[in-house]
Amino acid sequence: MSRHFEQSLQELKSKLIKMGSLAEESINRSIQAVLNKDYELAKTIIEEDKRINEMEIDIDQAIIDVLALQQPVASDLRLILAASKINNDLERIGDHGVNLAESALALRDKDLLESSLEDVKRMCQLTKRMVGDALDGFIHGDANLGEAVLLMDDSVDNLNRKITKDLMEIMKSQPANIEQSLEMIRVSRNLERVADLATNIAEEVVFIAKARIVKHHSADDLATKQTET
Amino acid sequence: MSRHFEQSLQELKSKLIKMGSLAEESINRSIQAVLNKDYELAKTIIEEDKRINEMEIDIDQAIIDVLALQQPVASDLRLILAASKINNDLERIGDHGVNLAESALALRDKDLLESSLEDVKRMCQLTKRMVGDALDGFIHGDANLGEAVLLMDDSVDNLNRKITKDLMEIMKSQPANIEQSLEMIRVSRNLERVADLATNIAEEVVFIAKARIVKHHSADDLATKQTET
Repeated sequence: MSRHFEQSLQELKSKLIKMGSLAEESINRSIQAVLNKDYELAKTIIEEDKRINEMEIDIDQAIIDVLALQQPVASDLRLILAASKINNDLERIGDHGVNLAESALALRDKDLLESSLEDVKRMCQLTKRMVGDALDGFIHGDANLGEAVLLMDDSVDNLNRKITKDLMEIMKSQPANIEQSLEMIRVSRNLERVADLATNIAEEVVFIAKARIVKHHSADDLATKQTET
Repeated sequence: MSRHFEQSLQELKSKLIKMGSLAEESINRSIQAVLNKDYELAKTIIEEDKRINEMEIDIDQAIIDVLALQQPVASDLRLILAASKINNDLERIGDHGVNLAESALALRDKDLLESSLEDVKRMCQLTKRMVGDALDGFIHGDANLGEAVLLMDDSVDNLNRKITKDLMEIMKSQPANIEQSLEMIRVSRNLERVADLATNIAEEVVFIAKARIVKHHSADDLATKQTET
């Protein structure tokens, strides 16, 4: 690998790490905005999403430049294509940060529903951890961190199902709480989508590290494989 | 452009067109399954999604091969990176087809709610048209078709908001209909996400055709620009 190419690749990685921090921050702060009914914070998150959008375009251009100028070989190509996907996933995480911030605005005058709040908080913690671990896995090229993220996704899916079911019961028994129940279901679904995107990133991390495709294999498969080996 | 490269590019495009047909078919059939409460069709869609997932991996490999073997120049790189994104968007459209098919299963014993059904049908028509036009735009390199898709996205967003609002009113006044209302909101949200992904593809189509970035510009911007010129 030429020194020039090595340098371009490092610059690309730095940009992606910076974008990762912005996306992670957007999710962490939007969760805080929902739980603390922080109106100002929610507005800031929505305004600052354009920085993430601009970075996505900037990174796409950097990817085209590195491919055009350096003509990398196959293993580096995998890394660069993975970077392109992670870039896209991070931008989408930013979009879900905006959705969560919008839910924070919608919920600011309403009671958060106590009965589901503990589950929502647990889901928030898991999702934050998945995003953080997926990014750390990418930064350090750590396949183990990536695989840990894949294993957490089922818990988030289960929590999402439980929260939705519980809130549906609340809607039936307490029609006055329909609006905030629906908004909390939306919060839960957005968290679940963020966890999915963290899973996508983790798949790329594992793919880069192990050059194998874990995509479209369930966490169950993975658990079985780990037991088998 | 060498004849060999031209051929690889055509093969890549053919694969992507085939994947596009599968994703489009998944959406069209899942809409049919919801509206006709077609249990068997819904199950088939869910089973057949793995073909779309396999094609995504196959196309990713073809992209790496064409980049590794041909070392294309900048304008072709844009096309190939766009192909990579479209590939990813199509796979996600397939996932929403599965979600819609799951809603069809959940709704099969229930009354579809008449009052919102006309809006949902209109949203189905628009979404199908957006996916179809985005793919036709890609196949024929037609920026006009791409731009037409971008202009439709606002209508889908507005319908999604209206449907959600109307169904929330139904939940308040008819608690017995909470479950199917929530499922129809889910149908509406999945259609809106499919329209978003069709918009992503249309942005790539315009980008390829005009080599300009329309991403993160609203359809309003676009409409203004068209009036100005």
